[in-house]
Amino acid sequence: MMLVIALSASPAHAEDGYDLWLRYRPLRTEQAAVFQHHASQLVIGSATPTQTVTRQELLRGLGGLLSQTPTLSDTVTRDGAILVGTPTSSPLIQHLQLDTQGLGNEGYLIRSVVVEGHPVTVIVGNSDVGALHGAFQFLRLVQTGQPIDHLDLHDAPRLKLRVLDHWDYLNGQVERGYAGASIWDWWKLPDWRDPRYTDYARANASIGINGTVVNNVNAGAEILTSRYLQKVAALADVFRPYGIRVYISARFSAPIEIGGLKTADPLDPQVQRWWRAKADEIYKLIPDFGGFLVKANSEGQPGPQDYGRTHADGANTLADAVAPHGGVVMWRTFVYSPTNEDRAKQAYDEFKPLDGHFRANVLLQTKNGPVDFQPREPFSPLFGAMPKTPMMMELEITKEYLGFATHLVYLGPLFEEVLSSDTMTHGKGSTVARVIDGSLDGHTLTGMAGVANIGTDRNWSGSDFNQANWYVFGRLAWNPTLSSRAIAEEWVRMTFTNNEAFVKPVVDMMMGSREAAVDYMTPLGLHHLMGPGHHYGPAPWDASEARADWRPVYYHRADRDGIGFDRTRTGSDAVDQYAPPVAAPFNDVKQTPEQLLLWFHHVPWNYRMRSGQTLWYELVAHYTQGVDDVKKMRETWRQMDGYIDPERYQQVAAFLAIQEKEAQWWRDACIAYFQSISGLPLPPGFAPPQHSLQYYESLKFDNVPGYSAW
Amino acid sequence: MMLVIALSASPAHAEDGYDLWLRYRPLRTEQAAVFQHHASQLVIGSATPTQTVTRQELLRGLGGLLSQTPTLSDTVTRDGAILVGTPTSSPLIQHLQLDTQGLGNEGYLIRSVVVEGHPVTVIVGNSDVGALHGAFQFLRLVQTGQPIDHLDLHDAPRLKLRVLDHWDYLNGQVERGYAGASIWDWWKLPDWRDPRYTDYARANASIGINGTVVNNVNAGAEILTSRYLQKVAALADVFRPYGIRVYISARFSAPIEIGGLKTADPLDPQVQRWWRAKADEIYKLIPDFGGFLVKANSEGQPGPQDYGRTHADGANTLADAVAPHGGVVMWRTFVYSPTNEDRAKQAYDEFKPLDGHFRANVLLQTKNGPVDFQPREPFSPLFGAMPKTPMMMELEITKEYLGFATHLVYLGPLFEEVLSSDTMTHGKGSTVARVIDGSLDGHTLTGMAGVANIGTDRNWSGSDFNQANWYVFGRLAWNPTLSSRAIAEEWVRMTFTNNEAFVKPVVDMMMGSREAAVDYMTPLGLHHLMGPGHHYGPAPWDASEARADWRPVYYHRADRDGIGFDRTRTGSDAVDQYAPPVAAPFNDVKQTPEQLLLWFHHVPWNYRMRSGQTLWYELVAHYTQGVDDVKKMRETWRQMDGYIDPERYQQVAAFLAIQEKEAQWWRDACIAYFQSISGLPLPPGFAPPQHSLQYYESLKFDNVPGYSAW
Repeated sequence: MMLVIALSASPAHAEDGYDLWLRYRPLRTEQAAVFQHHASQLVIGSATPTQTVTRQELLRGLGGLLSQTPTLSDTVTRDGAILVGTPTSSPLIQHLQLDTQGLGNEGYLIRSVVVEGHPVTVIVGNSDVGALHGAFQFLRLVQTGQPIDHLDLHDAPRLKLRVLDHWDYLNGQVERGYAGASIWDWWKLPDWRDPRYTDYARANASIGINGTVVNNVNAGAEILTSRYLQKVAALADVFRPYGIRVYISARFSAPIEIGGLKTADPLDPQVQRWWRAKADEIYKLIPDFGGFLVKANSEGQPGPQDYGRTHADGANTLADAVAPHGGVVMWRTFVYSPTNEDRAKQAYDEFKPLDGHFRANVLLQTKNGPVDFQPREPFSPLFGAMPKTPMMMELEITKEYLGFATHLVYLGPLFEEVLSSDTMTHGKGSTVARVIDGSLDGHTLTGMAGVANIGTDRNWSGSDFNQANWYVFGRLAWNPTLSSRAIAEEWVRMTFTNNEAFVKPVVDMMMGSREAAVDYMTPLGLHHLMGPGHHYGPAPWDASEARADWRPVYYHRADRDGIGFDRTRTGSDAVDQYAPPVAAPFNDVKQTPEQLLLWFHHVPWNYRMRSGQTLWYELVAHYTQGVDDVKKMRETWRQMDGYIDPERYQQVAAFLAIQEKEAQWWRDACIAYFQSISGLPLPPGFAPPQHSLQYYESLKFDNVPGYSAW
Repeated sequence: MMLVIALSASPAHAEDGYDLWLRYRPLRTEQAAVFQHHASQLVIGSATPTQTVTRQELLRGLGGLLSQTPTLSDTVTRDGAILVGTPTSSPLIQHLQLDTQGLGNEGYLIRSVVVEGHPVTVIVGNSDVGALHGAFQFLRLVQTGQPIDHLDLHDAPRLKLRVLDHWDYLNGQVERGYAGASIWDWWKLPDWRDPRYTDYARANASIGINGTVVNNVNAGAEILTSRYLQKVAALADVFRPYGIRVYISARFSAPIEIGGLKTADPLDPQVQRWWRAKADEIYKLIPDFGGFLVKANSEGQPGPQDYGRTHADGANTLADAVAPHGGVVMWRTFVYSPTNEDRAKQAYDEFKPLDGHFRANVLLQTKNGPVDFQPREPFSPLFGAMPKTPMMMELEITKEYLGFATHLVYLGPLFEEVLSSDTMTHGKGSTVARVIDGSLDGHTLTGMAGVANIGTDRNWSGSDFNQANWYVFGRLAWNPTLSSRAIAEEWVRMTFTNNEAFVKPVVDMMMGSREAAVDYMTPLGLHHLMGPGHHYGPAPWDASEARADWRPVYYHRADRDGIGFDRTRTGSDAVDQYAPPVAAPFNDVKQTPEQLLLWFHHVPWNYRMRSGQTLWYELVAHYTQGVDDVKKMRETWRQMDGYIDPERYQQVAAFLAIQEKEAQWWRDACIAYFQSISGLPLPPGFAPPQHSLQYYESLKFDNVPGYSAW
């Protein structure tokens, strides 16, 4: 087997990132030797598809990592055997009388025990999928060089739905995708099932992701036609053994477009019948279909308000259709209309009054911040504000606002920042994490969604380091209290090497990368300064967008006197959407964390910051710091040369060069612009922008990746 | 080295088609042993980039095929050495006094000689690129298991320009592309040079392709801006060592769109100055830039006729701009306007009168047939009709009209059929091949262009067998007199295996595949029966296209009495665009080859065919035969299971299943439709269509790959 692989390999295949973190390259001999004692034989069933793929993964992983494949056996006959299964599937495991309470249906335990007189590692779940998750965890321990001789691990997911949202169109385009085209080959489905679908499922299962929404929230009705449902069903068949369910983004007006009805009014009996019939049709093809994701009455999408109904009316009609089959509806709260009202307030204003009006199988899917996936936002005030409703968080893994494919920005700290934010709705410790894991308000239907950064690029995510953002999303969806640093280290070891001389500096570089991006793009609470439509590069001056709330000037409000969006009680009063103990400091310019200063306050240019310097000075200093940080990242990476394969080393190096160029551009363009408003001289010691403001304003871009206007 | 590769390999990389025909997998031990005696050491310089890549390719190829890498040496010290270079680069070679006359700049000789008392194989060119071509030929001999102990090969390309035309848009879309998105990552160029560009160059150089037009003939002016020229220059840098030049499709109105001029009139001095300046700018960045490809006054593209000028005026203005730098202009003759005139006649009518009016560095690029890349067309009457003008042939490698990615259709026989067609313009033997290789009318500027079937799909061409169409194009461009069967066998051995039990049946299957497609799509001279716009599937009834000459009914002209397009003297008289000895038989229904019958004649349904059966019978018989042939292909492939890797075996099998389904659809839909016109009963013994005509007419398709309406 390995021989065949060896011979069939060619340099063209050397390290192109395709393997992601499931790299399974041989460990150092002495390290492998240690593990081999605990991987002498494999006792695992193959009675179900999930058992079969679990067995395949362990053989592949251990065979690769230890350069020695454990022998398969029906029973334990050697020291160092690995026993995998469930109490019901394996008499040996049943006999161990292990306490599998609290593992639920997807959790696992891994323990060093003695079976038939032999020291054995057991990997146990209450279901095959739980055991599969345990197998991936065991492989992760080996891959990252953890001791495995005295194991006693219990783990189970904190969230029920851990879902990737693909913003993929049926024509192959991916909105905000920077990793090539859609990996779904809709045209050849269902007849051809690309082996890549299986590797996609392996990668997701390895980090506990258990759902995928296969099409864009800006959905066409076409995917609900029987022709496309056949294709979705083929994907579901591939994903099922890995414990992954498929979901569909549903177009609210589908009853009109493909149902031939005159209306999509959610309270119209015909419409309700249509959705029920459609759900029945889907579940006949896909018995474990997950449910619908819906973007309604947002950015031009149809919705219940077109018929004078509420979001609850709309969500409930779809919820009733899938409820008999155990399906759910993930209803997005990302709504705003062109009013004079602060856009950041609208989702709360629309949804808060509806708390308690949704069916039990509806989750409200809310972005981490009140605006739109900016490099830094405060947490959305909806978290904690709707105790009677399951709140699901939507994070953006694809870097729409964080440098596309070529900026190295590890999103772990961004995700961790919002999850650890304290809503104070039930007093101290009412973190966003506890809102979405249901513990705060006693919900069992919980979830987290990530907008995927996956495409046909060989490395899946457009860059090697973007793979870490897919990885950290999955790990945090499994357990929102994990540390983003620990996850980064795990990922680096699995993806590159266990060499400490590489791991430490690279993890440090990753951990600092998000703050660097905030600094060179939107420091001190600034937001939405990017180019129009395509969101590429800086354009704080831009007024080309039709809608005021799509224009940077709407958000930074810079004028002769100062800069920032007054969201205090003297302004839009967005602060009072938060619990009082949170609203109070946000309302007070002195108590507001400076990293959110200009989000909540309009502040004079000469405002004194805690450093004693003026706001203007700090603004320039932060922009400059961001560029310097990227220069340091490049220097760090230069020192990593030789620790990993040249292919990935060189691509990362090339991308960091692009990042430095663009960070400089962001810094210079923003300083040039804000200086033209403030009229202030550049603080001493800072280099002036490399070009004139006119130059930066003159830059226009076509064919920007991920921008839907193809 | 091999070890590293072996270890870095993972099953995910097993046989995904990426390596194309440069597979270099180990030969059978006994076979390898024989070759090892003739590959003991490698004597080759590395003073130039081309010498370096030649050395790399030989080490990689021989190392892979023989599982033993020849040692590098500065001089011959062993029996079985391989000596590579040019008389000027290598004193050893100069000393051999070989006759390199007739090798030109790109040809090579490979000969078994004695050097310093050792039997040696020399691979020699007059230039480094010639030696590179020789090295690839040598590898091909080893890969296909030919004897190499007494070699005496001379070879040189018959055509000067051997070019791939990429119909790629700058947004990543590929018009009529069925292999994913464009392989050009314009967004990251010039900063990031995808290693795939190098593998693209290796594949092309290995079959002698020496040029690539990087953008669609439906061109935007944007690629001529300095921002994009920098990107094109980066590609040129990657391709240069492989002897491949880049070309650009130029938009005729670019002087207006990016030049700020009020006109693009080719006789306007300002316009001429603009093109000269643009050419100078390009050659400063790309000293070996090949030149421009132009689609003008065709299908809505701008052109000289917009200003009352001729195609010659337009071509000459661009030609004068690139002439000082040694560039050429490839001007397409694919033109037709919505007139009542037979579309098949228009290119000839427009261009024939211009013979002799073009600059010396202009080639007219003409499609193989008079209409548009149909499964079968007669050769274009322009071949042989313009003796004073270099005629370049344009072939379509991507299967726009031949089943997209999933039909197995080897185009070699189609290409060979047109190349061996006799124009009779200078008497017998005035083949199309002799027109385009310049020998018939004494031209030295010659060429062949192929519309590429290349995309981001891992296997490059959308299917493994589509790679053969890229391969056969390159080999025929190098030598238009090669046999398509011999090329197919070469390709099968390199791409799959030398196992005779596989080679013979698979080559037979390939050779019959094009006639099968003709039979189930457009037998007996029928053409242009496909779906509107997207060109998917049968739609002989379709009248949805705006223009009459875009509608199938315009071409088949079926009515109660008969079917076919009368292009004889009683009809459109297209026949008289051919030389009299060709026109005469085409004008006579009895002498016209039946495979072109309905191209030239409108024939009664009960017309007696040579078989003695009626036309209606033969039509149904051919459609049925096409489906039966595909069934046989599937059966043949079933018997190939086990001879090759499961990955490629299974994909081919899955695609053949799709092909059978679609062949049946073509057959049934066309028979149902023509029967509704002829009103005749189905001949006895033939199965009726599986569905009603109404059913077939009701089928509509969205998101069809390769269709520009993204």
